[in-house]
Amino acid sequence: MSRTVYAVIMAGGSGTRFWPASRGTRPKQLLPLAGGDLSLIAETVARIAPLVPSERVLIVTSELLAEATAAELPQVPRANILAEPMGRNTAPCVGWAAAHVRRRDPDALMMVLPADHHIGAEDAYRAVLTTALAAAEDGALVTVGIEPTRPETGYGYIELGGARDAGVFDVKRFVEKPELARAEEFLASGGFVWNSGMFFFRADAVLGEVARQLPALAARLEEYDAAAHEGREQALVAATYGTLESVSFDHGIMERAERIAVVPGSFGWSDLGSWTTAYELASKDEQGNATRAEAVMVDSTGCYVSAPSGKLVALVGVHDLVVVETEDALLVMPRERAQDVRAVVDELKARRDPRA
Amino acid sequence: MSRTVYAVIMAGGSGTRFWPASRGTRPKQLLPLAGGDLSLIAETVARIAPLVPSERVLIVTSELLAEATAAELPQVPRANILAEPMGRNTAPCVGWAAAHVRRRDPDALMMVLPADHHIGAEDAYRAVLTTALAAAEDGALVTVGIEPTRPETGYGYIELGGARDAGVFDVKRFVEKPELARAEEFLASGGFVWNSGMFFFRADAVLGEVARQLPALAARLEEYDAAAHEGREQALVAATYGTLESVSFDHGIMERAERIAVVPGSFGWSDLGSWTTAYELASKDEQGNATRAEAVMVDSTGCYVSAPSGKLVALVGVHDLVVVETEDALLVMPRERAQDVRAVVDELKARRDPRA
Repeated sequence: MSRTVYAVIMAGGSGTRFWPASRGTRPKQLLPLAGGDLSLIAETVARIAPLVPSERVLIVTSELLAEATAAELPQVPRANILAEPMGRNTAPCVGWAAAHVRRRDPDALMMVLPADHHIGAEDAYRAVLTTALAAAEDGALVTVGIEPTRPETGYGYIELGGARDAGVFDVKRFVEKPELARAEEFLASGGFVWNSGMFFFRADAVLGEVARQLPALAARLEEYDAAAHEGREQALVAATYGTLESVSFDHGIMERAERIAVVPGSFGWSDLGSWTTAYELASKDEQGNATRAEAVMVDSTGCYVSAPSGKLVALVGVHDLVVVETEDALLVMPRERAQDVRAVVDELKARRDPRA
Repeated sequence: MSRTVYAVIMAGGSGTRFWPASRGTRPKQLLPLAGGDLSLIAETVARIAPLVPSERVLIVTSELLAEATAAELPQVPRANILAEPMGRNTAPCVGWAAAHVRRRDPDALMMVLPADHHIGAEDAYRAVLTTALAAAEDGALVTVGIEPTRPETGYGYIELGGARDAGVFDVKRFVEKPELARAEEFLASGGFVWNSGMFFFRADAVLGEVARQLPALAARLEEYDAAAHEGREQALVAATYGTLESVSFDHGIMERAERIAVVPGSFGWSDLGSWTTAYELASKDEQGNATRAEAVMVDSTGCYVSAPSGKLVALVGVHDLVVVETEDALLVMPRERAQDVRAVVDELKARRDPRA
């Protein structure tokens, strides 16, 4: 590849679906939810290390999380961690990161990756990334599409158009999260992939699209560039970031970009959306229990148990439960109710409980 | 009542059915399992205070538990706490306590009560105790029988004989724990009561029966009396208690005593045999949840939750579970599996885990 490649890791999320392990100040990407010792963001950076050295990895996170994120990634220079004063969805995030990359190398290629996904087949993953980067060299905005394995209603879909180069397709259209019947049709047709939220483009190409589609953002990014040359970028960001339109990169840029392409891939992808997913990814014993705790299991099957404190967890005669213990909280629920942990967090917020 | 009354609380138990709250060194009677702030043994002593002042309350426990038991009962003189070097079942325990009582007052009446029962209707309970004490004045060995409310197979039964005084009956026979069909017959017949393990007698009367039925025990108790006058009783107990025959008071004394009687009673008795019982006794919210914890309950019913540490416990979509958290352990099981907590303790013992 002739161009220098940068990676931008989007790490501003503060999800609630992994409560009580995740908290406002300890979100999913900072937790080792995929089963190993590394946090998801550290796994993400390690996974792309064969493609991008850590000095060319940028992280966009929130001010609240900047220090904890830096602590997770000692190999990434501190100056590469960009701290948003507040979240404004992904379009400003990607735009700001692209401005940084362009400042360092106007010809650079960049990949934009979520911080909190799990990848089961890393070699296949890196091959897809390499294909996507190559497809972006001519100025296209490229996304990776996940070959769907179920009629998922929680993701956006991309309909594949005609084949371009090997492994690269035109985009016929983006489809918002569908109803189940439509999702089933998409799955049956074979012509749809899940929108992975991974993007690949030249910094100048994406900033050209920002200028065309989101000119107010582009103008602000020019001001940030100017301020950066005077060492006062962060002050200007602090003063103005909140005025940026909150819009997703998909909706604000990709859907109406002039040149887009998609690279379908299948590499054991998971967005680790809930404790159910964590259970699915974890190694299990013969009774189907995934225990990340000192445990005594009596007549119990299909359970996910996490108690990193070292507390002894004894389950007797229970099935398909999630049991997660942290220093100050304990969650017990059926695996199939994993989406409803949000109700707990909402209740805690209503009580102004700091454990939300 | 013309005779002085002593109470002997049998508090040597080290049950496993309330694990993880109960431990070898923190058994059931030292825990506030009945829903209030007091431990079961402190409740027992408080409950009989209108009948027996605390200076005439003796406690028989194990050496291992003596200090913790004393700490629960500051109103009981330390000299009233008798420490067995090891458990030898209840006949030696009752005999030794009776020797102590006789030494203090040869004419005394005594009641022997388990430390770990719950009584819902205390006035009715004390009325039954008063009747039983009166029935014991003429030298009979008297027990209280609980009017059965279900065909329980976990208790011994007593078949009532003819009526003696008001509320006092002869004993036709003692019946070991029955099979369900027999228990159902007993319940239907109306002529059977549960053996409560509470006993009432004159100290001289019970020691007379000990001399007649368990002469080796009686001889040892005489030696203890002699040693007590020289201030070396505890040393002799330490050296010889283990040689006493291990036999229950029911089997060794009551079943073949010359004069016995039973006082049936109904006063909200529970032997607090398991977490299920603790749930049944606890106050519950409209969803049938009994929470002794800071809790967030979402779509959850019929659960018993205890987390005295102050940990926040969140339950989502679970029903009829027991969730008990202690400083170093956590138990999750269906209420109906409460008897099987023993399997956890057995497993921990096999692992030589100190949390057994």
